[in-house]
Amino acid sequence: MIFDILTIFPGIFESPLRESILGKACQRGLLTVRVHNIRDYALDKHQMTDDRPFGGGEGMVMKPEPIVAALEDVKPLGPDAHVVLLSPQGRSFSQEMARRFRAMERLVLVCGRYEGVDQRVAEHFVDEEVSIGDFILTGGELAALVIVDAVARLLPGVLGNEASPEAESFAEPLLEYPQYTRPREFRGHAVPEVLLSGDHERIRRWRRMQALARTRDRRPDLFQRLELSAEDRRLLDEYDRERP
Amino acid sequence: MIFDILTIFPGIFESPLRESILGKACQRGLLTVRVHNIRDYALDKHQMTDDRPFGGGEGMVMKPEPIVAALEDVKPLGPDAHVVLLSPQGRSFSQEMARRFRAMERLVLVCGRYEGVDQRVAEHFVDEEVSIGDFILTGGELAALVIVDAVARLLPGVLGNEASPEAESFAEPLLEYPQYTRPREFRGHAVPEVLLSGDHERIRRWRRMQALARTRDRRPDLFQRLELSAEDRRLLDEYDRERP
Repeated sequence: MIFDILTIFPGIFESPLRESILGKACQRGLLTVRVHNIRDYALDKHQMTDDRPFGGGEGMVMKPEPIVAALEDVKPLGPDAHVVLLSPQGRSFSQEMARRFRAMERLVLVCGRYEGVDQRVAEHFVDEEVSIGDFILTGGELAALVIVDAVARLLPGVLGNEASPEAESFAEPLLEYPQYTRPREFRGHAVPEVLLSGDHERIRRWRRMQALARTRDRRPDLFQRLELSAEDRRLLDEYDRERP
Repeated sequence: MIFDILTIFPGIFESPLRESILGKACQRGLLTVRVHNIRDYALDKHQMTDDRPFGGGEGMVMKPEPIVAALEDVKPLGPDAHVVLLSPQGRSFSQEMARRFRAMERLVLVCGRYEGVDQRVAEHFVDEEVSIGDFILTGGELAALVIVDAVARLLPGVLGNEASPEAESFAEPLLEYPQYTRPREFRGHAVPEVLLSGDHERIRRWRRMQALARTRDRRPDLFQRLELSAEDRRLLDEYDRERP
């Protein structure tokens, strides 16, 4: 899969794309990330990429021409591209969106900066606007990296373990159960006995119970989207009986 | 403000902390980010930081000892620290949380990896668990960078313009109005006439109307948390009349 990233700060991407799982995936050719500097497409002699907002107000707005010129240079590089503008005004990124993006051959990510990007870019020159959350960043660069990371780990071969990606959080709207590893006792805190029992069915039920209770208690917004089975209801009852 | 980051991939942080607004803020001493390698605190000769989960299952779990040893080394560096574990099971990061964190002298961010972190770390050795969204990353490193970025931009002097941070999205649960800059016409798309009118009150009302309508149409979850004034209701009616 190919990612083309349009930014005025290409340097930000250097170390995150070089290290760890993303770095290895790039080296192995499992994904290609090309970073393009929007400033190279600014036409005036000062290479300005932003200007003051019409109608007044604080801050600067990214100009449409350099971004659209960059898009028109990058899109024909092929294959077919889906163009995403990172902006706090976009639809919320989610695991479901990551799975949708994974199926694409190429994603072009446009990083906004400053107070925002001229609205004509969002309306006429990109396929969708995406936000990674209800908070404000200095720019879309970290949001683009988050999307590259979340999508890349779903590509075949990127995680060592092929079975891993889909078994995790948000495959259904459910938080993960607690995980424990050695030692059995750490600073007076023991691993729950059930996990040492070797009884796979008991372990499965305990994990399901923990995941359900945790989602209900921490993330009621996710919990209400869950379709509970009869077993799920029994497990939650059991959880509540054990914790008065 | 000081950030201490605990990670097994310290290299990831290099270029994002060197470039752009975060880089400048670090150079000017407005914020200090110290990155600590959890692997340096692994006691066995292979410096293992992960192990297989008790109870079976795919993937590896981060061991408690190296993380807790790193925390016990880093916490006394002072000043008082609030310790956050990045994990998909945490509370959702938001602009409100960014404002809460900004008031702290020091934040310690612990980056989980793999299938997760031994539950005893989350339960007994950190102050809270935070997630940046309902998606899965290869690790907590990009999540930590997102938090550093969102919090740092709220610190005095980090953005050139002192007035800027609080006027933006999510100060109330409202998306921003569309922004436009020069040229007045770009590829046949004109800037809305009202923004060129010089009538500040008309511009204010138009922007409020756009922000309200956009939030209602794109993010009903935010919209239902808004407390609409009488003017807000009139503006939404006006918006709907103009767009049949």
